[in-house]
Amino acid sequence: MTTQQNDFSKWYIDTIQKADLMDYTPVRGCIAFKPDGYEIWEHIQEEMDRRFKETGHRNAYFPMLIPESFFQKEKEHIEGFSPELPWVTEAAGEKLEERLALRPTSETMIGHLYSNWIKSYRDLPVLINQWANVFRWEKKTLPFIRTSEFLWQEGHTAHIDEEDARKETMQMLAIYKEVVEGLLAIPVYDGQKTPSERFTGAVDTFSIEAMMKNGKAVQAGTSHYLGTKFAEAFDIKYLNKANQHEYVHTTSWGTSTRLIGSVIMVHGDEQGLILPPRIAPTQVVLIPVGPWKKNPEIMEKLDDIYAALKNKGIRVRLDNSDQSPGFKFNEWELKGVPVRIELGPRDLEKNQALLKARDEDDKQSIDLKDLVSAIEEELTTMQSRLFEKARKFRDENAHTTIDTLKDLKQHINISKENGSIPGWILAGWCGDDACEEKVKEETKYTSRNIPFNPPTTKTTCICCGNEAKHTVWFAQAY
Amino acid sequence: MTTQQNDFSKWYIDTIQKADLMDYTPVRGCIAFKPDGYEIWEHIQEEMDRRFKETGHRNAYFPMLIPESFFQKEKEHIEGFSPELPWVTEAAGEKLEERLALRPTSETMIGHLYSNWIKSYRDLPVLINQWANVFRWEKKTLPFIRTSEFLWQEGHTAHIDEEDARKETMQMLAIYKEVVEGLLAIPVYDGQKTPSERFTGAVDTFSIEAMMKNGKAVQAGTSHYLGTKFAEAFDIKYLNKANQHEYVHTTSWGTSTRLIGSVIMVHGDEQGLILPPRIAPTQVVLIPVGPWKKNPEIMEKLDDIYAALKNKGIRVRLDNSDQSPGFKFNEWELKGVPVRIELGPRDLEKNQALLKARDEDDKQSIDLKDLVSAIEEELTTMQSRLFEKARKFRDENAHTTIDTLKDLKQHINISKENGSIPGWILAGWCGDDACEEKVKEETKYTSRNIPFNPPTTKTTCICCGNEAKHTVWFAQAY
Repeated sequence: MTTQQNDFSKWYIDTIQKADLMDYTPVRGCIAFKPDGYEIWEHIQEEMDRRFKETGHRNAYFPMLIPESFFQKEKEHIEGFSPELPWVTEAAGEKLEERLALRPTSETMIGHLYSNWIKSYRDLPVLINQWANVFRWEKKTLPFIRTSEFLWQEGHTAHIDEEDARKETMQMLAIYKEVVEGLLAIPVYDGQKTPSERFTGAVDTFSIEAMMKNGKAVQAGTSHYLGTKFAEAFDIKYLNKANQHEYVHTTSWGTSTRLIGSVIMVHGDEQGLILPPRIAPTQVVLIPVGPWKKNPEIMEKLDDIYAALKNKGIRVRLDNSDQSPGFKFNEWELKGVPVRIELGPRDLEKNQALLKARDEDDKQSIDLKDLVSAIEEELTTMQSRLFEKARKFRDENAHTTIDTLKDLKQHINISKENGSIPGWILAGWCGDDACEEKVKEETKYTSRNIPFNPPTTKTTCICCGNEAKHTVWFAQAY
Repeated sequence: MTTQQNDFSKWYIDTIQKADLMDYTPVRGCIAFKPDGYEIWEHIQEEMDRRFKETGHRNAYFPMLIPESFFQKEKEHIEGFSPELPWVTEAAGEKLEERLALRPTSETMIGHLYSNWIKSYRDLPVLINQWANVFRWEKKTLPFIRTSEFLWQEGHTAHIDEEDARKETMQMLAIYKEVVEGLLAIPVYDGQKTPSERFTGAVDTFSIEAMMKNGKAVQAGTSHYLGTKFAEAFDIKYLNKANQHEYVHTTSWGTSTRLIGSVIMVHGDEQGLILPPRIAPTQVVLIPVGPWKKNPEIMEKLDDIYAALKNKGIRVRLDNSDQSPGFKFNEWELKGVPVRIELGPRDLEKNQALLKARDEDDKQSIDLKDLVSAIEEELTTMQSRLFEKARKFRDENAHTTIDTLKDLKQHINISKENGSIPGWILAGWCGDDACEEKVKEETKYTSRNIPFNPPTTKTTCICCGNEAKHTVWFAQAY
């Protein structure tokens, strides 16, 4: 297998294919999510959905096809999305009068409908989320991270005023941060996007940004305050208490199946996937070792352990196939199963089993009577340990002392020579788009976000050297 | 509001719109599922998904776009679906080399992928389900029942031999019957489709059929044994234990959002929806009555009841808006909320509340200390009561003594004159397509299925009078 360091992209593709998470299809940029890949998404969905509902949101479903004229109504929106839309032009043997786009996002369709649904301040807020497939026909695709069709959730809310809408925008960003850090064990920086990186049609875009093991950034979730832009474009007005018509303030927020790709790129190692216990399709694998077939007690004991773990709600597999233990170890490591239990005749004599955590080198000997609780504990500690390891890696590769474009270019060159990871840099920015653009042109580094809680604050612009208005994370991004 | 009896179709549309389940959109035949409509689907999904997983199935996700050439591979399949496919012909500003269909169902894409995924008998069975949107661009649409885009689940499994595949086909049909009867309180007849009503490309199709309140039939779920047809078309072979290549035997099975429409049409009445408690977004509504605003104890008591019900996991709403009690009663009846609780000063004096079940005329006085348990009990008994009412209605309108085409035509005419419901008929059939076709032409009655457990057995064909090979349900169908 390709190593992470030699060729990270190849390592990524090899890893997700060998771990059986996905397959390519003949439709350009569209992948099939295989059960082990899809189940990661199901665990993400379950946790997100629970939190959306706890905060008063309800799910709905909107048409996937959007009339071309809808896109024309919000100028920035059509400019942003039209280059990547697939179009339905014929149906049931007839040419359509108007082309229908496969939704890249649903602000326009939902804007159209909300203008009918919202009449009075009594109807507000409208707090709706949708789980759906969306399409962005992009030139360069990468499984999970950027695909022509992907799965996501998109929240679309309407509020009585800016204050309420901004509160919603920040609430959802906070939920994203909690879920991505807590469930996926991926540390993120939350912050505001610069204008050039805003969602097309948004007043303000906020994001959470995660660092992959090659130092690149992934935008792991975004939350937008849309102001009254879509309300004006789609005429979404309500009667206020004084009986006057006012535009609603809307928000939208989304996370997608790119989170699956991020988990792989944040935690995986040379042996394959490492899955955080909370989202692993298989959390524990039981493997008989030694001459176990001659000793029926081994399988009896493993059956007991299997039943006890099942009973605790732990996702456990028992691998009693004919392959060698070494082959099985390798296979389950590749799939990123958090905990492996080995039991052979010699272990049984000593009334113990071996426990191997996927991310640690040493095996632990555990007394059989304590095994189930030891496994439970290991799943919990491994979840936090993976988060801490990822945070340590990120902090080591998020540089805070590179303050000029010249230093950045030198840093990138040195990294290239050393085969080390250039990572992110925290730098000042004067607020001028031209400076951001120049950094991008010369280094491929783009602004990720203006973090709410930066490790330090910068005073001069990385590009022009003038006074910095903002302290910004810059990185190469997926 | 239009009455059910005068104009059932108009009653249906009025009812689902007033109950806020859906909205029309400018895209032909595509509806928006509003939160109360979508939540019914979520309850169905949850129960189905649990049962699929209990029986060893896992979810996956396949591309929505299917290359035209895939459809050509299974001849019957393309003939069946091509008249209703929408096509993507352009994407990202370029004309595509090959048209891509919006999936009407995924046998072809999945067949293509399974041919790579399945190599050996060790890989079998493959037990995969997908939750997805699908498209059938039909001329005549009806919200939930027949829409251009709808939501469904489609199971696709591959097996070592016919026996195993047929067992799967029947297992999934049995799960559909249990969920539709148990969760939706809709009685169904399970049975086999006649060849003319088979899924295009299937060897055998089985269905569950439900009777709506206008006597029409809805196919509420189908399960297909596909033999080796798709395996041959897509070259899905495995190495058996003797090291020889063999075709797999495949199945597919599906249920869709038309189940939402069926629930409305089976249980609804002149006052609007009646939702079975297990799928009702709101199971209980609490309404203060009388001069309750002058008596703060009323709201305190209702808050307590609300908390106690929430605590039991019951989906409860408290309506303390300024509308009159009569207005509220009407509104929540329209929405089909199973149980309404009224509490006013006079009730409180007597230490009791009034309980009104949506489907019964009388209110019950319940001692406050017993209220929570009385509500729980009512939700359970109402679930069974709705099923029994629907079964009684169906049995009364499923006729078993009409044995000739002449009698059927007379029966339909008499029904029309009386304004009564013609319903279904159980009749003999010789097995000749021409007889089925003639019944359809002259009466619009089509064969629904050959029930596994018919109320009685028929010996002569309804059309030609020859010996009957099968006893068949005939009905007008959606």
